Amino acid sequence: MSSSYGENIRLTIFGQSHSRAIGMTLEGVPAGSRIDLAALERFLARRAPGRNAYSTARKEADKPEFVSGLLEGVSCGAPITALIWNTDVRSADYTAIRDIPRPGHADYTAQVKYGGAQDCAGGGHFSGRLTAPLCIAGGICAQLLAAEGVRIYSRIAAIGGIADRGPLLAPTAEKDFPVVDDAQGEKMLERIAACKAAGDSVGGLVECVLDGLPAGLGDPMFDGMENRIAAIVFGIPAVKGIEFGAGFAAAEMTGSENNDAFCLQDGEIRTKSNHCGGILGGITNGMPLRFRVAIKPTPSIAQAQQSVDLRTGEAVTLHVPGRHDPCIVPRALPCVEAAAAVAVYDALLGRRKERG
Amino acid sequence: MSSSYGENIRLTIFGQSHSRAIGMTLEGVPAGSRIDLAALERFLARRAPGRNAYSTARKEADKPEFVSGLLEGVSCGAPITALIWNTDVRSADYTAIRDIPRPGHADYTAQVKYGGAQDCAGGGHFSGRLTAPLCIAGGICAQLLAAEGVRIYSRIAAIGGIADRGPLLAPTAEKDFPVVDDAQGEKMLERIAACKAAGDSVGGLVECVLDGLPAGLGDPMFDGMENRIAAIVFGIPAVKGIEFGAGFAAAEMTGSENNDAFCLQDGEIRTKSNHCGGILGGITNGMPLRFRVAIKPTPSIAQAQQSVDLRTGEAVTLHVPGRHDPCIVPRALPCVEAAAAVAVYDALLGRRKERG
Amino acid sequence: MSSSYGENIRLTIFGQSHSRAIGMTLEGVPAGSRIDLAALERFLARRAPGRNAYSTARKEADKPEFVSGLLEGVSCGAPITALIWNTDVRSADYTAIRDIPRPGHADYTAQVKYGGAQDCAGGGHFSGRLTAPLCIAGGICAQLLAAEGVRIYSRIAAIGGIADRGPLLAPTAEKDFPVVDDAQGEKMLERIAACKAAGDSVGGLVECVLDGLPAGLGDPMFDGMENRIAAIVFGIPAVKGIEFGAGFAAAEMTGSENNDAFCLQDGEIRTKSNHCGGILGGITNGMPLRFRVAIKPTPSIAQAQQSVDLRTGEAVTLHVPGRHDPCIVPRALPCVEAAAAVAVYDALLGRRKERG
Amino acid sequence: MSSSYGENIRLTIFGQSHSRAIGMTLEGVPAGSRIDLAALERFLARRAPGRNAYSTARKEADKPEFVSGLLEGVSCGAPITALIWNTDVRSADYTAIRDIPRPGHADYTAQVKYGGAQDCAGGGHFSGRLTAPLCIAGGICAQLLAAEGVRIYSRIAAIGGIADRGPLLAPTAEKDFPVVDDAQGEKMLERIAACKAAGDSVGGLVECVLDGLPAGLGDPMFDGMENRIAAIVFGIPAVKGIEFGAGFAAAEMTGSENNDAFCLQDGEIRTKSNHCGGILGGITNGMPLRFRVAIKPTPSIAQAQQSVDLRTGEAVTLHVPGRHDPCIVPRALPCVEAAAAVAVYDALLGRRKERG
Repeated sequence: MSSSYGENIRLTIFGQSHSRAIGMTLEGVPAGSRIDLAALERFLARRAPGRNAYSTARKEADKPEFVSGLLEGVSCGAPITALIWNTDVRSADYTAIRDIPRPGHADYTAQVKYGGAQDCAGGGHFSGRLTAPLCIAGGICAQLLAAEGVRIYSRIAAIGGIADRGPLLAPTAEKDFPVVDDAQGEKMLERIAACKAAGDSVGGLVECVLDGLPAGLGDPMFDGMENRIAAIVFGIPAVKGIEFGAGFAAAEMTGSENNDAFCLQDGEIRTKSNHCGGILGGITNGMPLRFRVAIKPTPSIAQAQQSVDLRTGEAVTLHVPGRHDPCIVPRALPCVEAAAAVAVYDALLGRRKERG
Repeated sequence: MSSSYGENIRLTIFGQSHSRAIGMTLEGVPAGSRIDLAALERFLARRAPGRNAYSTARKEADKPEFVSGLLEGVSCGAPITALIWNTDVRSADYTAIRDIPRPGHADYTAQVKYGGAQDCAGGGHFSGRLTAPLCIAGGICAQLLAAEGVRIYSRIAAIGGIADRGPLLAPTAEKDFPVVDDAQGEKMLERIAACKAAGDSVGGLVECVLDGLPAGLGDPMFDGMENRIAAIVFGIPAVKGIEFGAGFAAAEMTGSENNDAFCLQDGEIRTKSNHCGGILGGITNGMPLRFRVAIKPTPSIAQAQQSVDLRTGEAVTLHVPGRHDPCIVPRALPCVEAAAAVAVYDALLGRRKERG
Repeated sequence: MSSSYGENIRLTIFGQSHSRAIGMTLEGVPAGSRIDLAALERFLARRAPGRNAYSTARKEADKPEFVSGLLEGVSCGAPITALIWNTDVRSADYTAIRDIPRPGHADYTAQVKYGGAQDCAGGGHFSGRLTAPLCIAGGICAQLLAAEGVRIYSRIAAIGGIADRGPLLAPTAEKDFPVVDDAQGEKMLERIAACKAAGDSVGGLVECVLDGLPAGLGDPMFDGMENRIAAIVFGIPAVKGIEFGAGFAAAEMTGSENNDAFCLQDGEIRTKSNHCGGILGGITNGMPLRFRVAIKPTPSIAQAQQSVDLRTGEAVTLHVPGRHDPCIVPRALPCVEAAAAVAVYDALLGRRKERG
Repeated sequence: MSSSYGENIRLTIFGQSHSRAIGMTLEGVPAGSRIDLAALERFLARRAPGRNAYSTARKEADKPEFVSGLLEGVSCGAPITALIWNTDVRSADYTAIRDIPRPGHADYTAQVKYGGAQDCAGGGHFSGRLTAPLCIAGGICAQLLAAEGVRIYSRIAAIGGIADRGPLLAPTAEKDFPVVDDAQGEKMLERIAACKAAGDSVGGLVECVLDGLPAGLGDPMFDGMENRIAAIVFGIPAVKGIEFGAGFAAAEMTGSENNDAFCLQDGEIRTKSNHCGGILGGITNGMPLRFRVAIKPTPSIAQAQQSVDLRTGEAVTLHVPGRHDPCIVPRALPCVEAAAAVAVYDALLGRRKERG
């Protein structure tokens, strides 16, 4: 099903941008798992808008209300459901979307698919707002993974072609602008500011690492770690590409360059390089799992754009109203981490079946 | 399940490189669908090795034997199962793999996962040979899509950093070396030859297009076309990245550059550019669906490599015996097309549920 | 996943007897489907307790609050989620359940499964209360089936061995005690009253019919209509058996008695008898689909019972406190109809995939 | 998918009665599991026809050929696929089935569903012959369960209303006619002989027990043990009902009669009676899991029957040619055991996910 993910745990996301509430159900969390709800809210806060100059001013509390599955913060074995109430419901800002689709948005395809019954307000079920319930599920799974010694972290790897520098070896989440090299971060912020001033937006890259994974997670063929992670990460709106380890750069390399030699280090089998991104044959090899995600520029821009009135077929010059986020890449970081956490925790539960 | 894919049709792949047979079962093909078996064999021949100088010399007939589901080439509604018998079974070439894993292969991770019970001969279930049953399923789905007006084609987009030139507008499958610009193809062939001479291998890019798709296929969130295609394409060994439309390049663009303006053309809603690769909100918009796949260099190379003897922990200089394919990118083309065909045909059947 | 059901639509149920809320998410309802919410509430009212002398006095409004997926009663294509808020939360009545399991309840097995983390209050996720969200989903599916000409109805077929008389040809839902033969109904009510007076409970049978189904729904083998319906009906607590058509009686018959002869009636292929219950080879044949369900007596009784203190292993005489429902069979009717509606509507959507 | 079953292992069955081969793929068997192939063949022999006077004379070897997933009888982690070659292919016996459907068979419903493309020879994919691959999978799972201390056995509980006597406490598989009370077995055999002489057939009941199961298998709601077992058992042709523990008899009981009191026995929590059939809230309680299955009489009988010519709508008196099995109940025993083994082994793997 379209809004569900997972084999061993099962995440279901519901809600539209302007429905009464959005939320998620997470089935299969082992009973007795303690969830730190305060830590979860801090994780969610990283996704929230309005934190600084480069994101939209709309204020959302995004505080999840758990209605089932937890007893005083401990999972009881039943499905965990949490809601986030929408306070900003049914505004009049978006009424024209059904007839005059915004370029880069799902307005047109949703109109074709749902025969006009779509809830187009604020992007409906396609809205980036629906990444909030993803972050609830991912924040829970990240805590469960942390209890197994797995750390997940990410950075802004590039904005509009300006790349961060240096390897990603530790979390950047405490930083106001989560890059490794702050000087490059300054240039990225300038780029964002310039786009904002021009009524435009800009895309970027997110890099994510999962450290401390045991070897042996994932499965051959269609349940490899790449398949599993890609299948959920593309559920984040605006993601248009994903690569693992060297990724697209591997396509330019020779085998002798790209192959990661095995070695013994502190009694553990390791590899000298990590071009494979910690995954061989779909299965983790015990090295850090690394992947990068391409985020397209926010399609909502202030500049005039060309569209068509679906009722008449006439060309229309469209001005999308409202304040726009000139760059969603910073807010995408917790979403990418969340998606990875769900995928990897699912694989970890699956691994248990193999060991009596 | 790891070796199965699909919601509305269901593909299951079985077999190991050196088991008695490999094969596939495809459930859910509507009864009464006529399959052109001769055309299917021609499709499979594109994947076969030993066709020319740049691929391995091992000869495989790869002729599928259909044991169920088809009556004189017409689907009867029951699962379709086809086998390819392995003639090259249980050779002695690979015995050391269990103990001394080859860099870049799944030998080590399979050993961890299966506790030593893995069938390591020829790569077992992880072998590229298992793309043959994928191509059977994909070849069938491609025929079913063709009957709905959908054409699938692909090209070698780059080898070792040498890129093809010009847009991909038509099939290249009839070409001996499937690129658009033959001059660039010559350079790629030289690159492959040089790698072969050096006992090395080289990676590359595959671009794939699905033309003639109706708008409205795919679903929001985790069943978007990107999710569906990525979830199967990463099942092809050696794939390390995927991007749709502008993909990673979109991350360097502004919204005003990347957004595809809507227009009316011959009475149809179209977009003036196609940076989104024919997909908005996970759903096809009626423009060609385009994606590119990064293929890492073949991990089997003749050069000496560093590994570890898992029994003793000692460092070992490994020489992988046998003839190696210096570049598998050409053979990956039908595999990528096949994977896309399965994913898209599944989405097309899913679309039918929405329309009474 | 345990609390989810369906292939073409997907129902997920969440909540515990005493959690903040219970509810359901229904994915895959085609966009543009109009739901009559007033009719849905009338359907739910049939399941509500406290309607008359033979059910518990606990009052529940059971009014669903839809938080997503519906726009003014019309499905928008996104998952439909509805909640029922629990007003009767965290009472102190049930604290001993964790340690001294009630016979006939899931207390003990939940304790083993969840290692003591279970939410045992009121039966937790195992509570009959969780059939309310099932009825929301089933009520929606029943409306969607009605729009296709399918009527679903049921009756109390027996209470404590006292059987209803005459065939079930029309709905009994308007009746205060839904049987065909009211004289038999009186005897059943006397039986229930006697059990209540004795601090005991009693079981019974529910018969359910789906009329107006097209031939061709369902699939061979594991997705036959029997499999699909049984897989959801056993999700109703207290169900211990199911039979289709003649069912267990068919086991006493000869082939010449049991086989349903084909005939032509008003230009339609029909059968002269309907021992198969409208299903042949798992697929509907156009005759009414009939099945019967065995409901065990409510395990909560006022009489003293033998149990064991799990902490000490000592035998304990247990008195289950609170008011008990002496017979849940009448309230099971809408639940059985709901389960059947979900299963059959799922099969109906699946059927659409086969027809271009 | 229709011909697949399972969450943690996945069984896919393919083939038609007269296709080149029938077979099965079983995914998810943990690597390193040893399968006793000789014991498996003995298990399959119990299903084979032609063993004695009361079954059809058609000879089938039904020897499975494993083409993948096993290395010298040990699972390697890849999907296990086995074929049984059909030697009796495409006989001319069944040509009229497409147009004149046999009462009690799937001929008519398959014709509606598949629009005439069905493989009707011998019942196609609906044939009882397809229980042979089910028995391969079930025989494997039964061995894996035996290694965990679980024994599965069954008996003929009744034929045509003549019931076996005494409780089922031990396997009957070694008996020529697998009942507990041989005197009752004699009467059943006479009943079968009388039906055969009359050109008729007769139905019956199968009782199945799983002994030695740990408490805690299965899940609440739709993945309870009843749901799981019913969902696969109804995949055996001719099954029209299933009941667990007291089953339909429980519907006639009071709560004080039906509730199973807990007690301590040899340091284990047990119940004094077992009306629940070893399942409470969908989860095993450590007592023997017991269920009974209603098998309708074989629809193929020698007597003349009424049908309709689908081409003309004319009433037809039908004589089904060939030798018929007057009673398939004895052959159904290993099928029911196999189905239960697959369902329960799947639940057992699922249970492992909950325990780190």
